[in-house]
Amino acid sequence: MPNFIFCIHNHQPVGNFDHVIEESYENAYLPFLKAVREYPSVKLSFHITGYLLDWLLENHRPYIDMLREMVKKGQVEIMGGGYYEPILAVIPPQDRVGQIRMMSDKLEKIFGKRPRGMWLAERIWEPQLPRYLKEAGMEYVVVDDYHFVKAGMKKEELAGYYITEDMGSALRVFPGSERLRYIIPFQQVEKFVENVRWVETLGTNPAAIFADDGEKFGTWPGTHQWVYKEGWLEKFLEAITENSELIKPATFSEYMDNNEPIGRVYLPTTSYMEMGEWALPAEASETYTNLVNEVKTWPDGERVRRFLQGGFWRNFFAKYPEANWMHKRMLYVSEQLAVSSKQLTAHSSQLTAHHLLYQAQCNDAYWHGVFGGLYLPHLRRSVYENLIKAENLLEIVSGKQKAVSSNSSQLTAHSSLTQEADFDADTFNEILVRTPSINLFLSPHNGGSIVEMDFRPKAVNLSNTLSRWEEGYHHKVRTQSEKAGSGEAKSIHDLTASKEEGLEKYLFFDRQQKVSLVEHFLKKEETLDSFKKNAHEEIGDFFNKPYENNKGQGSRVKGQVVFSRDGKVKDQSVLVEKKITVKDNEIDVKYRVAGRGERPFAPTTNTDQLLKFGIEFNLILPCCDGSEGFYDVRAKDIGDKGLESTGEIAAIRQIGLVDKWTNMRVDFSFDKEVSLWRFPIETVSISEAGFERIFQGSCLFFFWDIALDTVFETQFTIKVESI
Amino acid sequence: MPNFIFCIHNHQPVGNFDHVIEESYENAYLPFLKAVREYPSVKLSFHITGYLLDWLLENHRPYIDMLREMVKKGQVEIMGGGYYEPILAVIPPQDRVGQIRMMSDKLEKIFGKRPRGMWLAERIWEPQLPRYLKEAGMEYVVVDDYHFVKAGMKKEELAGYYITEDMGSALRVFPGSERLRYIIPFQQVEKFVENVRWVETLGTNPAAIFADDGEKFGTWPGTHQWVYKEGWLEKFLEAITENSELIKPATFSEYMDNNEPIGRVYLPTTSYMEMGEWALPAEASETYTNLVNEVKTWPDGERVRRFLQGGFWRNFFAKYPEANWMHKRMLYVSEQLAVSSKQLTAHSSQLTAHHLLYQAQCNDAYWHGVFGGLYLPHLRRSVYENLIKAENLLEIVSGKQKAVSSNSSQLTAHSSLTQEADFDADTFNEILVRTPSINLFLSPHNGGSIVEMDFRPKAVNLSNTLSRWEEGYHHKVRTQSEKAGSGEAKSIHDLTASKEEGLEKYLFFDRQQKVSLVEHFLKKEETLDSFKKNAHEEIGDFFNKPYENNKGQGSRVKGQVVFSRDGKVKDQSVLVEKKITVKDNEIDVKYRVAGRGERPFAPTTNTDQLLKFGIEFNLILPCCDGSEGFYDVRAKDIGDKGLESTGEIAAIRQIGLVDKWTNMRVDFSFDKEVSLWRFPIETVSISEAGFERIFQGSCLFFFWDIALDTVFETQFTIKVESI
Repeated sequence: MPNFIFCIHNHQPVGNFDHVIEESYENAYLPFLKAVREYPSVKLSFHITGYLLDWLLENHRPYIDMLREMVKKGQVEIMGGGYYEPILAVIPPQDRVGQIRMMSDKLEKIFGKRPRGMWLAERIWEPQLPRYLKEAGMEYVVVDDYHFVKAGMKKEELAGYYITEDMGSALRVFPGSERLRYIIPFQQVEKFVENVRWVETLGTNPAAIFADDGEKFGTWPGTHQWVYKEGWLEKFLEAITENSELIKPATFSEYMDNNEPIGRVYLPTTSYMEMGEWALPAEASETYTNLVNEVKTWPDGERVRRFLQGGFWRNFFAKYPEANWMHKRMLYVSEQLAVSSKQLTAHSSQLTAHHLLYQAQCNDAYWHGVFGGLYLPHLRRSVYENLIKAENLLEIVSGKQKAVSSNSSQLTAHSSLTQEADFDADTFNEILVRTPSINLFLSPHNGGSIVEMDFRPKAVNLSNTLSRWEEGYHHKVRTQSEKAGSGEAKSIHDLTASKEEGLEKYLFFDRQQKVSLVEHFLKKEETLDSFKKNAHEEIGDFFNKPYENNKGQGSRVKGQVVFSRDGKVKDQSVLVEKKITVKDNEIDVKYRVAGRGERPFAPTTNTDQLLKFGIEFNLILPCCDGSEGFYDVRAKDIGDKGLESTGEIAAIRQIGLVDKWTNMRVDFSFDKEVSLWRFPIETVSISEAGFERIFQGSCLFFFWDIALDTVFETQFTIKVESI
Repeated sequence: MPNFIFCIHNHQPVGNFDHVIEESYENAYLPFLKAVREYPSVKLSFHITGYLLDWLLENHRPYIDMLREMVKKGQVEIMGGGYYEPILAVIPPQDRVGQIRMMSDKLEKIFGKRPRGMWLAERIWEPQLPRYLKEAGMEYVVVDDYHFVKAGMKKEELAGYYITEDMGSALRVFPGSERLRYIIPFQQVEKFVENVRWVETLGTNPAAIFADDGEKFGTWPGTHQWVYKEGWLEKFLEAITENSELIKPATFSEYMDNNEPIGRVYLPTTSYMEMGEWALPAEASETYTNLVNEVKTWPDGERVRRFLQGGFWRNFFAKYPEANWMHKRMLYVSEQLAVSSKQLTAHSSQLTAHHLLYQAQCNDAYWHGVFGGLYLPHLRRSVYENLIKAENLLEIVSGKQKAVSSNSSQLTAHSSLTQEADFDADTFNEILVRTPSINLFLSPHNGGSIVEMDFRPKAVNLSNTLSRWEEGYHHKVRTQSEKAGSGEAKSIHDLTASKEEGLEKYLFFDRQQKVSLVEHFLKKEETLDSFKKNAHEEIGDFFNKPYENNKGQGSRVKGQVVFSRDGKVKDQSVLVEKKITVKDNEIDVKYRVAGRGERPFAPTTNTDQLLKFGIEFNLILPCCDGSEGFYDVRAKDIGDKGLESTGEIAAIRQIGLVDKWTNMRVDFSFDKEVSLWRFPIETVSISEAGFERIFQGSCLFFFWDIALDTVFETQFTIKVESI
């Protein structure tokens, strides 16, 4: 008789808004479990990720009590996983084991037994995983049947489980059915029964395996109505109960205890089918998605489709430099923690630092598919907040720093640390300057720019912006607009909703990651509009080019770094030198731009020779898009106009960005008058609700009209403080 | 100006015959290098694997001297790699680093500098490799452009190198051109120049990268004539020299020192395109290969081909249980070595044990594509020989054993060790019984069978057979035969040569791996012919079924293991019990087969009730297929008939297998008269020369006609000794 394994995975990203989680609880988690409880012969293999589990324990304890009852009765098997749902393959080996064990410990405490198997975040498989899963005590894992098909198997061979291994550590792998993922809970219940009848033909004791997100049962648009109000779930549970001579409900553990593995398999680097579309570069993503859809309509398309393969998850780090930086930043914190945990295993705050690191490993903020993910500033903010807090804690533990609070005067204001390493794993070194208030990561190789600027007391990365990258789906934004304009009917493929009209007007793309302290040489007549749209011309070769790191000079002063580049502007040799000095919460920058002449620059210089020299900053103040009222910017010389709109200001010496949400401010003070272009960085991305525009930060471009036959010098200070 | 990187990889498997290597030397290695030396402006990035390098040092020292001169002059960059060309992803992490470092040490000694980059065996990439390569001191690696295409990139983006990383360890990856692999040295030199002209359009300082086997320049059928006698290589070198305004020869290191990476990439688990066909299961392999060929003829086939993906290398362990066992056996030796190297780092024989282990990791014997590989008994033999020798050495080092030699009387004959572990990583435990003369691996889960039986003094695994597995290309063997029969012309796709006619008559396939000490219950009228063709019927449920491991009983006697199974024969309950006792070089086996009755079995029992009960052995005596005269078998009761032919012998009590090549013999002695079926296990596989039949061992089936209503008991001894 065919077994039916019903596996549900419930997840909420670290840093998600409470009201969003509450909505999922009301619409999906609660009604789902209540319904299943009424059908005691139905078995569940159930997974809740750590952040959601903790939220439920705190906010809906009776839900957990109900679940524990169902576990006691044997109706539910609780599955483990990485505590905060990390992509296991891209976190350090010790954290893989640490996160899984932390989850097992917690589940044992709540439910009285350790989980025997686990849910694999985003089903992102890599062949080195089995040894870590085994080390962490896992006996099985579930992925998609798609993984097995990519190893050359047929769906007919997948009604059970297989053995895989790495370095001799064996692990059982269950293939969740792609077909069932599209039936449950979206199609008529009869389709499910039909599927079980087909599975019945596949062996002596086969298993129909469903493994998918719990949010599909009430949170996804339209599903609450369909699953509960129109009775889909009840019909489904009824069907399982009534067909007891056809369907034998079983948990993963029950099934594997009573059945031999079908065979041995080695799964390639893959995830579920849809992830393959998202992980490709923009052009390939569009081409591949269209091809997959087309092949489905071919008479013998299955023969081709079977061997079609999309992209590899890790390429999100190639697609988005911001995801790469965040990931490598996380690795750095993990490394610091690994080193100190050897010295300090007994210290009580150790666990907290691990929790913070593990929270920062939650997968959602590192990639982008059809959910917001990386595009959501509050998720990225949460990652950096946890990382910076973990580092702060580590220093307390190791005694380097007495306390980190919002009152920076308590810190040893003049201590600083400078470290050079290839933080982002691109073979070129970056430089970290750390004071009690600031972490400043500088990249000599990438224009001597600031890649990350943290205000440590608030645990905020001010450089946490996202550039405007081209996406494979952007052509749809344009197509929809054109069709709307022409009055033409929309075809089914174009039916993606948009949260607002006219999004195509925001489709500008950046050449490089939008970092800070970036020099540009522009023609004098260059405009804010073309700079904003990234349609301007670089007339120098400084942008995104390597700078010398003048170590001898920099090391003379503590917290000081000196960069220079002998480059060209048009055909003329130009030397740019910048001296960056960090003291507690202040960053002091001195510029020297020397052309052919040795004559100091004066605004009265021959105007024919003039060009724009400027310095770009891209900063986000957390979760503040102005419209929600958290964003309050005052350019001291221009009143309350705010920086969320686009504009130009001339002849200022000071500007302050004030954020009332986190209660902090950033002040720029110049030694001479400067002009400023400012505009919001806004991306167009996709989410469950359709296309949307998201504020990712402010671009500030400070510039002067200078002549190349002079020496131009300026000095300015960036001060960050709590208010 | 486009750079041209010319990378050559020369490899010979550990255990290959001297005359085969000598032939490659004469036909390819020597003339190739001599020719390149004459064109000093041509640069080479050159790789020689360790076994070949050592062979050249011993047999052709002047060749190495010539190469050193070319290195000194800067014409050649020597590349590193794993010393004995292992598949890095499937050997233990410490061996990855150890093999690469051992190679770098050797190269430094010979050529005066350590290699900066490496050749990756079979270009089998897995994403966890960068950290180990970096740890071993490698700055770059070369794979195929195919790897990059599978990550979603276009060939136009691949005229340079990329950065990849794992856990923050960055590595440069060069994409070798698939197109150039088909041009060099097979097409007109003009095609190469055309390709460089196309590369010229791809960037400011692009690179055309060729990276392929040196054996294509003279060893492959027909290539010596074409490359040297018809002057292809001279024309090619001439073209590079003459086009100095178009082609800039560069080594990998020169190129990367002068050029920035194009970007970041994460390569999925893949190898070169062709490997994807071979690594799939038989059916999928054939379907995929046909599809790829078909797609090439489609007008917009490239759009589809770009996303087609074949199998994953590790599945050779799923495809061939013999490869899996050999691999896991290697892991076990590596583990023993890793444990003892902590205790014994200073011991002088340590290095030798590492060499033996590393030799056993040489990739060729573990897989099968268009070369013999796993199908070649002498390559498998070499793996086991090295593993067993390494274990023998380890025991000497750790003082457990005084000496291991061919004179087994010197050993402590009565010592033994029994160990239970999941040696083959299938979640079920096996049992190892080790004496000074024998390693016996038993699998309770797989019929209580013998999976491996080593004679330690000779370092021979007597169970080193290969089962007859179905291959995707076998249908071609049949098709060719049919067409030959019908007189029909052969199409181009069928033009695979065969070393002999009538190979289709050898296409029988085994249900399970052909191991030893395997019980069968057959109908009395079952024939040798149907047993040989695996067309017989199992009337019991013992074959390949789990046996109880009666530990309590077994542990009473040292070196004893007791297995039993309560099973069925037809509808009757039957208990089979076997008691295996290993003493030095003797294996004693006691059987008890108990049906319903308690009456002892007698040959006069009612013949209607009779059936065949028998025990199967599959043994190889090394490299002996009879026809070469190394195989000498004497059934004491039947004279010198030999066991290489198929036959039946009745009523014997003793049989000895004598191998004059290794000078050892195996004797079976029974307590009662027994019948014997014997036949060679012969596989049909493909190699460069076409389809061929290979002797993989002898199947010996000892049987009795017994009645189920009796208790049948027998006892026999297997004695292995040097002669």
